[in-house]
Amino acid sequence: MINYPIKKTAKSANKTVSAANRGMNFEAMINQTNEFYLNNDIAIIYKKPIPIQIVGVDYKRRSAAKITEAYYKLPSTTDYNGIYKGRYIDFEAKETKSTTSFPIKNIHIHQVEHLRRVKEHGAISFIIVYFSKLERIYLLDSDYVTEYFLRADQARKSITLEEFEEHGYLIKEGYTKPVDYLSVVDEYYLKEKS
Amino acid sequence: MINYPIKKTAKSANKTVSAANRGMNFEAMINQTNEFYLNNDIAIIYKKPIPIQIVGVDYKRRSAAKITEAYYKLPSTTDYNGIYKGRYIDFEAKETKSTTSFPIKNIHIHQVEHLRRVKEHGAISFIIVYFSKLERIYLLDSDYVTEYFLRADQARKSITLEEFEEHGYLIKEGYTKPVDYLSVVDEYYLKEKS
Repeated sequence: MINYPIKKTAKSANKTVSAANRGMNFEAMINQTNEFYLNNDIAIIYKKPIPIQIVGVDYKRRSAAKITEAYYKLPSTTDYNGIYKGRYIDFEAKETKSTTSFPIKNIHIHQVEHLRRVKEHGAISFIIVYFSKLERIYLLDSDYVTEYFLRADQARKSITLEEFEEHGYLIKEGYTKPVDYLSVVDEYYLKEKS
Repeated sequence: MINYPIKKTAKSANKTVSAANRGMNFEAMINQTNEFYLNNDIAIIYKKPIPIQIVGVDYKRRSAAKITEAYYKLPSTTDYNGIYKGRYIDFEAKETKSTTSFPIKNIHIHQVEHLRRVKEHGAISFIIVYFSKLERIYLLDSDYVTEYFLRADQARKSITLEEFEEHGYLIKEGYTKPVDYLSVVDEYYLKEKS
C-alpha cells in the first residue's frame, strides 16, 4: 500500500492518533465514519438495526411502550448498506484479536450469500476486517469471501493475514473518518469504471 | 393506468383474489412480494429490522439471551431498501383507512429527508401507500413527497387521492406478487434511461 506503509501501522508510531486507542470499539469507528460521510453529503450508509423477535410488550405507559420479552434473531443480511456515487454499497464489518488470520465462521453463511447476490445485481459488496492487535483494517471483496467460504478444506475455514495482504486493501485510519473505506472504493472499484 | 383500470379495482370485482382480502396486512403483502423478487433473483430488497434500544438482557440461558427491557426507537431511515438492476432502491410503505387522502404525518420528517437525500445520490426512492378501503396501492416518487411535506399550508399536510392519481402510479395486485412495485419502477423509472 502506498499511502499507509504496513511497517508503520504495525508498529506503535501512530498509537496516539489511532481511533482504536481512543477507546473506540470497531462498530463505533465505522459508525463515526458513516456519520462523517452523511454529514458531508458524501454517502448515505447506515447500520441496520439488530434483528429482534419481540414476544412481550407492556403498553401501560402510553408514551413509551416497554418491550418486556424479546430475543436476538439471526441476521439474514449484512449490517451495513447504502448508496455512494449512485452505487449500492453493502458490507459486513468484523473485528478479530488474531494476529494471523480471520476465522470466517464469524460471518454467517447467509451473509456471505447475501454479499454474493447483491454483487451479482450490481452492488459493491465486501467485508471489512479489523485486526485489532495489529491495528490494521482490511477491505476484502465479496468474491474472495465467497471463494474462501466455499473452500473444500473444511478444516481451515479462515482467511489468513497474507491473503488479506494479497487480495484485500488496507484502509487508512484517521481522526474524522476512523475507517475511511470509501477511499478504497474510489481507488479500486470506481477508478476502473472511468 | 392501462393495465389495471381504476374502476375495476375500486369495485369489488376481484375481491376474491385480493391479497388484502386474504387477511394479509400490508406489511406482509410487501414482504411476500420482496420474497418473490428474492426467490426469483429479480431484486434483493429487505425490510430493515425495527430499531430498538436495548436496556436489559438476561444471559441466564446460554442458548438464547432474553431481552427483558427495551424500547422502540424512532427510525432514522425508511423501512425498505435494496438493489434492483444495479440501482439502489429505497422506500417507505404505509397503509391508510382514509378514502380521500393520506396524512403525511404518518411519515417522519427524517424519513422524508432520507428519501430526498438518497435520491440526490442516485437512488430510486418513493413511498408506497395502500388505501385499504379502496383497495388501491400507489407508488409516489420522493420528489412529490418532499414537495408535499414542505408545503406552506401547514393546516393541510396530507396528500389527496387526486394527487396520487395525478402524480403517482397505481400498483398492480397479484397472487405471487401482492404489491408488484418493481413493474412500476420498470415502466416509469428505468424506461426513460434506455
